Amino acid sequence: MIDFQTDPTRYRHWKLSFDGPVATLTMDVDPAGGLMDGYELKLNSYDLGVDIELADAVQRLRFEHPEVKAVVLRSGKQGVFCAGANIRMLGAASHGHKVNFCKFTNETRMSIEDASEHSGQCYIAAIAGSAAGGGYELAVTADHIMLIDDRRSSVSLPELPLLAVLPGTGGLTRLTDKRRVRRDRADIFCTAQEGVRGKRAVEWRLVDEIVPPSAWEAKVTERALELAGRSHRDGVKGIALTPLRRTIADNAVSYPYVQAALDRAARSVTITIQGPLDLPGDLRGIHDSGALFWPLAVARELDDLLLHLRLNEPSIGLLVFRSVGDPGSVVAADGLLEQYQGDWLVREIRLLLKRVFKRVDMMARSLITLIDPGSCFAGSLAELVFAADRAVMFAGTATGDNRGPATLHLSALNFSAFPMGNGLSRLANRFYGEPESLDAAARLIGETLDAETAERHGLVTFAYDDVDWDDEVRLILEERASFSPDALTGLEANLRFVGPETMETRIFGRLTAWQNWIFQRPNAVGEAGSLKRYGSGVRPDFNTERV
Amino acid sequence: MIDFQTDPTRYRHWKLSFDGPVATLTMDVDPAGGLMDGYELKLNSYDLGVDIELADAVQRLRFEHPEVKAVVLRSGKQGVFCAGANIRMLGAASHGHKVNFCKFTNETRMSIEDASEHSGQCYIAAIAGSAAGGGYELAVTADHIMLIDDRRSSVSLPELPLLAVLPGTGGLTRLTDKRRVRRDRADIFCTAQEGVRGKRAVEWRLVDEIVPPSAWEAKVTERALELAGRSHRDGVKGIALTPLRRTIADNAVSYPYVQAALDRAARSVTITIQGPLDLPGDLRGIHDSGALFWPLAVARELDDLLLHLRLNEPSIGLLVFRSVGDPGSVVAADGLLEQYQGDWLVREIRLLLKRVFKRVDMMARSLITLIDPGSCFAGSLAELVFAADRAVMFAGTATGDNRGPATLHLSALNFSAFPMGNGLSRLANRFYGEPESLDAAARLIGETLDAETAERHGLVTFAYDDVDWDDEVRLILEERASFSPDALTGLEANLRFVGPETMETRIFGRLTAWQNWIFQRPNAVGEAGSLKRYGSGVRPDFNTERV
Repeated sequence: MIDFQTDPTRYRHWKLSFDGPVATLTMDVDPAGGLMDGYELKLNSYDLGVDIELADAVQRLRFEHPEVKAVVLRSGKQGVFCAGANIRMLGAASHGHKVNFCKFTNETRMSIEDASEHSGQCYIAAIAGSAAGGGYELAVTADHIMLIDDRRSSVSLPELPLLAVLPGTGGLTRLTDKRRVRRDRADIFCTAQEGVRGKRAVEWRLVDEIVPPSAWEAKVTERALELAGRSHRDGVKGIALTPLRRTIADNAVSYPYVQAALDRAARSVTITIQGPLDLPGDLRGIHDSGALFWPLAVARELDDLLLHLRLNEPSIGLLVFRSVGDPGSVVAADGLLEQYQGDWLVREIRLLLKRVFKRVDMMARSLITLIDPGSCFAGSLAELVFAADRAVMFAGTATGDNRGPATLHLSALNFSAFPMGNGLSRLANRFYGEPESLDAAARLIGETLDAETAERHGLVTFAYDDVDWDDEVRLILEERASFSPDALTGLEANLRFVGPETMETRIFGRLTAWQNWIFQRPNAVGEAGSLKRYGSGVRPDFNTERV
Repeated sequence: MIDFQTDPTRYRHWKLSFDGPVATLTMDVDPAGGLMDGYELKLNSYDLGVDIELADAVQRLRFEHPEVKAVVLRSGKQGVFCAGANIRMLGAASHGHKVNFCKFTNETRMSIEDASEHSGQCYIAAIAGSAAGGGYELAVTADHIMLIDDRRSSVSLPELPLLAVLPGTGGLTRLTDKRRVRRDRADIFCTAQEGVRGKRAVEWRLVDEIVPPSAWEAKVTERALELAGRSHRDGVKGIALTPLRRTIADNAVSYPYVQAALDRAARSVTITIQGPLDLPGDLRGIHDSGALFWPLAVARELDDLLLHLRLNEPSIGLLVFRSVGDPGSVVAADGLLEQYQGDWLVREIRLLLKRVFKRVDMMARSLITLIDPGSCFAGSLAELVFAADRAVMFAGTATGDNRGPATLHLSALNFSAFPMGNGLSRLANRFYGEPESLDAAARLIGETLDAETAERHGLVTFAYDDVDWDDEVRLILEERASFSPDALTGLEANLRFVGPETMETRIFGRLTAWQNWIFQRPNAVGEAGSLKRYGSGVRPDFNTERV
């Protein structure tokens, strides 16, 4: 089992240090600390385990260190910044592991950019040594890239010539879209194993500045303080991201607010979210609750569960979301998130919820949400209705159930707080062709919506009454389980994202899809392919046909 | 060899008929007319051969029939509009053939939308019978979709449940982006083998109207005349797209203005474009020249060559573009295209050039352009410089060559006439991060640019003089040939298109990349996969893991 929970006391590969508004995140990978056997993490190369620690560090910097306004990313090893993803790991890993490894590393890099853009916690990459492949891709997430000008240190994306795969952790897209490197220069850069250094690296916009070795440390500090000085970040005292309370059994994963029940025969998992049981009354209360504040707790628990399912439960193809609780309490929680949105912690919680819902969008699993009596799909929780491939609502009351009919509730957060990767709210994405329906939905904020109203306004796919519910739901789930998992993944990766694309969706849509294709091709993964033959001294044997 | 040249006298699958401003394009596929053995094209299903005729018909309608303002797409068979791509063909075809088949059919469907948007030649799909899979995808290219309401006729995208692949000829993307079908409805539609008919088809925006059988013919005519009446198309007398003069030898393909020399050992082809030898003096002269007018002749010849290379020469991984001729004549040809852009024929020629250059962008081959003494990369021809992955220019004069130094010339057409699929001109795409460089380039229109100037302005990748030229060019070509063809395809599919995405690039980037991935997966193409087992009565055996 791969566990995504960690904390700084357990890090094997990263060190965090603090100096007033500047934190330093030092990569110093333990070669013997690989997640699996069979490879050594030499030269600050990484595997999923290294990235899990990085993701944790980035998260903790946001929640536990409001005083940190700039983060310096650097290496603890001489002569190397980071050698990228470990090649022997890639060569040995299954297709599914490679794909999920890339997805998670991409998400982690997005979270760095999110911290910079929305939390005023900016990153500087201070490259002394070589930053190769995923090492350079990591640096490119920073706001400012510094390269020591020592005639040896360089940046490179050698994946194509070395491994016959793409710089797939956003590298290609960030080159063109973020760094705005001219395409023919990008072409040269991505085919030159040795990389680029010195003045050309600046001229080609691969780095922002080069610094002579004598001025290096002073300049890094100067830049960090400069960036910190421009930050709007204003928190004082962080909250602790306390360990999740989680139990994992054969067919269940349980947290205080999130319960997952696996049905292996049906290849599905039912994820039930429990609404808030109590809520603080004001901002002080939110800070005092810390990691126990319901929106934050739910976000962390759900996030952990999603990652667990991705890596540890590949045969579970269908996520069924349910909820239980008082919709009024969810609305009240949303009210707190709305009322105190100017506060740094509330902002972080909203941003985390946004990222977790994006993780839902990026699940290569089918998503079905069931809204039935006793459920509390309201406001932020209703994002799971709009993220779903289909949402089905129970109409009327169920026999022998005195909880009354199922209801759905919209809050202002559904329209603004949780944009998808394509920049649209899930409702705007849903009503891409119907602006009038989006407007109509906005007028329903605060209303209690029954199934008939929700269906009429296009907020759910179908409503079924007591007579039909069981059969219809069963049919949907059975039908879904009968389809090809790959075809569903491709279908969902297209239908979930309409219209506009952003750097983020271009990475996950265009770049990742091509990389996944390449990860299936014999030229990369066959017995005579690059990944298998790397380091053997024998050149790969390519099929020369273009397709 | 697959030949992309045809004409209506040779069509086996389509019939064209004319009635004033309305043409009818009737699909009546000859089951015995498959391009390859081993399958029958039943129920108006199609293979590449059927689509080659369709592409030809769409092209001829534009050039040969300026009087046609609306085209009705319909079926010549009872009870079926079109059953989509032939499944047994897909099951038997190589991966490369499937990918190229999808690419060409996608391009053909784009050309229909281009005719409607830019030539005022609008399409109506008149569906009587079932329009399934690619059949519905074809219909969705039309401006207006009519479905007969006879309780049997339906539209459907059954690829996923039936074949475990995607509706990959633009289907998914056109559903969300063009038809703006709500995503959960699109999900249901794409998983429901039986499709949708009647009122629901209208309510879900899958078709624009349903028509009772009794009113069918009258309503189709009425709608066609209505659309024709709104057209700005104003030509009177068309020109004939006369047969291309082409000779194909073992290692060469020759046309009057385009010469291709294949070097199989180097896996490259050198494509040399000959500049204009003579040009008409005015609009009348352009019309009189017809298909012999240089820009039109070059466009048709290059287009045919590109398609030939895609399907018949898969091991040629590198296209090297050269040109020979008088740059002044190319500038003069551009001048005619600019001066008479209001004329319907000139507009069609510009639009064809645009589509051919897009076909270049979509080549899954590396593109290198060499600008050397005697070349004529000016204006429209310079698009091949900006389309290339790298462009290299000869600096100074070559020993024993009295033609003087190589030059590059920009015309207004480079900034406006030939947008890429992402909506940007190739220069805007090149200078995505440098608007000031784009402005500077615009100020160079009409200038004669030497290598030093072209390089300084970022218009070429590198300039080499007589001393270095041969070695540097050889190194580029040899290095390129040494890389994995698949990895290059993925790299180029990313780097060639920066920033904005459109429905078109979303189809070719996101949808196609996922489809290509699925086309590699055992669940679709393995011995127990859907495509192999289709029609055998044995259900496919899926690996249930999600990746």
